[in-house]
Amino acid sequence: MTTTDATARFLAALRFDAAGLVPCIAQQHDTGEVLMMAWMNAEAVAETLATGRVCYWSRSRGALWRKGESSGQVQRLVDLRIDCDGDTLLALVDQTGVACHTGRRNCFFQALRDDALVEISQPLVDPKALYGA
Amino acid sequence: MTTTDATARFLAALRFDAAGLVPCIAQQHDTGEVLMMAWMNAEAVAETLATGRVCYWSRSRGALWRKGESSGQVQRLVDLRIDCDGDTLLALVDQTGVACHTGRRNCFFQALRDDALVEISQPLVDPKALYGA
Repeated sequence: MTTTDATARFLAALRFDAAGLVPCIAQQHDTGEVLMMAWMNAEAVAETLATGRVCYWSRSRGALWRKGESSGQVQRLVDLRIDCDGDTLLALVDQTGVACHTGRRNCFFQALRDDALVEISQPLVDPKALYGA
Repeated sequence: MTTTDATARFLAALRFDAAGLVPCIAQQHDTGEVLMMAWMNAEAVAETLATGRVCYWSRSRGALWRKGESSGQVQRLVDLRIDCDGDTLLALVDQTGVACHTGRRNCFFQALRDDALVEISQPLVDPKALYGA
């Protein structure tokens, strides 16, 4: 999708943290729903731009995380935007299925209601079905 | 707005990083526009919940950053949500004016177009007018 030169220009505008990472917010491009936040290193950014499929860096696994490679819940890239100071990305995506490993559409489901911390959305699919556990 | 007990329950669900911070995405509550991403420590989270006005932690200044205290561009809190693993916040807000210090409505204005990195939105107000420079 993106040329090598364009990827190089994009990467040059980023300020990676001490661990070589930037946070990336994933937003469903048409509804505006904020789906999740994860991290990218330079290789993940380059692969995302090159393939048009969102690839993160898994801090827990210490490896590239091609979103959906286990679950099938891939994110097609619509646009990748850099913020004013170059240290955060916003990925507009088309999410297949659900973004959250709990089976919910998005990861942000804990909130205060009547002074109790509750789950404000429920899983749409069984996580076991996503990961074949 | 929020009781001390509720704030304690909320904070207990958060996993702060080694620096005692969590990233917080600010989203305009009615349009879905992702405005910015900044960081909060426990004190900023507690103040945000207590006052209903969003307060971050400025990593550059090493101090609480009551959004809009210099610029007047405050964020009224509508809802504060925690993600599945407790390490990211999503703040639904009502943004007065612009969120970005460049005078743009949101911070995510750099993107690739025809293989060039360009600014896809323009300032709505002069930053000098915001900060009295």
